[in-house]
Amino acid sequence: MTSLKGNLMFGQSGGPTAVINSSAAGVFEEALKHPDVIGKVYGAAHGIVGVMNEDFYDIGQEDANELKLMQGTPSSLLGSVRYKLSDPDKDDSDYKKLLDIFRKYDIRYFLYNGGNDSMDTCDKVSKYLDKVGYDCRVVGVPKTIDNDLVGTDHCPGFGSAAKFVSTMTMEVFLDSRVYYDGMIVVIEIMGRHAGWLTASAALASCKGYGPDLIYLPESDFDPERMMDDVSTTLQKNKNVMIAVSEGVKTKDGLFIPELVGEVKTDAFGHKQLGGTAMVLSEYLAREFGIKTRAIELSLLQRCAAHLASGVDVEEAYQAGAESVKAAMAGASDVMLGFRRKDGPYAIDMVTVALEEVKNFEKKVPREWINEAGNGLKQEYIDYAMPLIQGASKQAVEDGLPRFARLKKVQAGRK
Amino acid sequence: MTSLKGNLMFGQSGGPTAVINSSAAGVFEEALKHPDVIGKVYGAAHGIVGVMNEDFYDIGQEDANELKLMQGTPSSLLGSVRYKLSDPDKDDSDYKKLLDIFRKYDIRYFLYNGGNDSMDTCDKVSKYLDKVGYDCRVVGVPKTIDNDLVGTDHCPGFGSAAKFVSTMTMEVFLDSRVYYDGMIVVIEIMGRHAGWLTASAALASCKGYGPDLIYLPESDFDPERMMDDVSTTLQKNKNVMIAVSEGVKTKDGLFIPELVGEVKTDAFGHKQLGGTAMVLSEYLAREFGIKTRAIELSLLQRCAAHLASGVDVEEAYQAGAESVKAAMAGASDVMLGFRRKDGPYAIDMVTVALEEVKNFEKKVPREWINEAGNGLKQEYIDYAMPLIQGASKQAVEDGLPRFARLKKVQAGRK
Repeated sequence: MTSLKGNLMFGQSGGPTAVINSSAAGVFEEALKHPDVIGKVYGAAHGIVGVMNEDFYDIGQEDANELKLMQGTPSSLLGSVRYKLSDPDKDDSDYKKLLDIFRKYDIRYFLYNGGNDSMDTCDKVSKYLDKVGYDCRVVGVPKTIDNDLVGTDHCPGFGSAAKFVSTMTMEVFLDSRVYYDGMIVVIEIMGRHAGWLTASAALASCKGYGPDLIYLPESDFDPERMMDDVSTTLQKNKNVMIAVSEGVKTKDGLFIPELVGEVKTDAFGHKQLGGTAMVLSEYLAREFGIKTRAIELSLLQRCAAHLASGVDVEEAYQAGAESVKAAMAGASDVMLGFRRKDGPYAIDMVTVALEEVKNFEKKVPREWINEAGNGLKQEYIDYAMPLIQGASKQAVEDGLPRFARLKKVQAGRK
Repeated sequence: MTSLKGNLMFGQSGGPTAVINSSAAGVFEEALKHPDVIGKVYGAAHGIVGVMNEDFYDIGQEDANELKLMQGTPSSLLGSVRYKLSDPDKDDSDYKKLLDIFRKYDIRYFLYNGGNDSMDTCDKVSKYLDKVGYDCRVVGVPKTIDNDLVGTDHCPGFGSAAKFVSTMTMEVFLDSRVYYDGMIVVIEIMGRHAGWLTASAALASCKGYGPDLIYLPESDFDPERMMDDVSTTLQKNKNVMIAVSEGVKTKDGLFIPELVGEVKTDAFGHKQLGGTAMVLSEYLAREFGIKTRAIELSLLQRCAAHLASGVDVEEAYQAGAESVKAAMAGASDVMLGFRRKDGPYAIDMVTVALEEVKNFEKKVPREWINEAGNGLKQEYIDYAMPLIQGASKQAVEDGLPRFARLKKVQAGRK
């Protein structure tokens, strides 16, 4: 495939992670190396909506040092969005708008960083541009603490979230058992449909400082079975630690907070969860008559760049850089993915058709979960442990994080 | 004063911190250097109750390397306790028991690590032993994330908690403002009566990534005034971040969760708080009709040794070591305290009579809080910033904390 000259548009989408800006740095630094092919490098404000609104920045005007600092800056520095493109056969107004912008700014490379919904956006945009004969390479850059994208061994963002969850769980474990009296601690971890991140609490358990019981959304949640599990644990130990996914559901399809109240939904119709630990801990306190504490890791687990996994930061960066290289080499309508090699931990970067990725969810294999459905097996530990290695690259100034400061020179609205 | 020969008993009391074991390491390593004076070094299981139960360990049998690792191990490794000694004039049974144990094991040095309540325990024990003519040096080692002990510039444990609160607040700040739609984030921070730790969110604000509004228990909390504050902030910005102490009370003396429900009390009659952020965020969501999120930092803020302040770890260690030296030099019925020097940050270690410390609470000075009672002035920043400097000393193995493992060789129950 011959090289395609033009400009590059990059956007960040969905819930941020500790390393999503590391992928952005990878895209930007790589793209800026090829001014003969990629004339301008644009960063969209708030993803696809920023593109449609002609709201994007000229990344070529940023300081090189600030782009480097993005590797230690959590959250989406460009701004993120949750916006669902319509089915183009029913309503193509968004697509026409995008096409106008792409033509106006000669966008020939569109790289988009996100999870399942964002890969669907990529695929729709790619297929539309192809249909109307506009030559543009579209590559999805994976991102999600949920780790639920298919077509890749794991997702940038997961390793850092898993490192925070497992480290904090170990520290809370020690803190929660200093008194004579026992206590039940319930830690609530993010993960809408897949239990990858909740399962990372098992990394703490395998070190001897973690949950006795781990409940993933991969199994139906049965409050009665949890009671039995807790009873059994209390016979051996006055303390019990439980890790639970915000996404566990009863066999009737109810989330835990739905058992006692209302739950809101977001723009994609996804239920906004939270409150699971609180509901369960109050239930356990009542049933067992001992002290309980609910801990919701909330936003902390996805933005704790101070404790990012070095492996994750580097892989997120490479995912961005390799996406640019793949697009320049002719790849389109694909997502950049990781394939794990045999032997000591190492990965190859591969491209996967978006068709095979979008809107699918990869779950924790049943055979990695123990028979009782309340813990993980060694297979999971072997999978996840390499992903949390290495230290954060966060710069520190006055004992506090020194985040990247982008100038955000407006390049749209010409 | 001549040197007093005998054994040393050390205990940990009250809520743990990220560096309480660093003080223990300081006590142990220093005491073990003087076998000619201090024959045996004992560590009490669960503080004063462990002493009374003859439940304590022979620290001389621990590996030197594991004692070093205590500087990166959060929580109370020996076990902690919340136990209130009676007034000895009304009931001296606990004191008689202690005296028997002290005689039986020739305890001539009693060092006790804790906050206000623990300093009261120290003082009572010291005065009783003095009254009955048993020669024993009693020294309190300060500890509390609340930072509310008088007689010392600041308390070991505070700097690390403040570093966690301010760093996480900065990271959450970025994470919480990635979308087009605004959001109100309410972060709840520990501190029963004093706002020192909640105020540390101002360190994030002074870097440009922190709360717009900070409410401390030093001022009466007025929900109507908060509504005005939020309204004013929303006129300038679609996002609002609020830091609130779990201990704020209305002018009628009610904690926020008490406005909507029940609150439990602990062994000291202190109310067990939590839920403040949740109540306020639900109220704000209703009143302003915008998205809100409640984040309770819970146990994380006091056990995050992975993000401990290097200054705090070192000072906590020195507080332990200097307490041993002070006791050997003849000090008793005192607490070890820090006096800040003029000029660039540095401290002297001093001893303060327990009489002047016990049961008092040092609050954030009114003149360090802004006029409106919703933020901190530069005086607070200048005070707190030096205390969060320097990195954690936590050892890492397989990408996870490597905690100290004590053998805990039982030395009591002879």
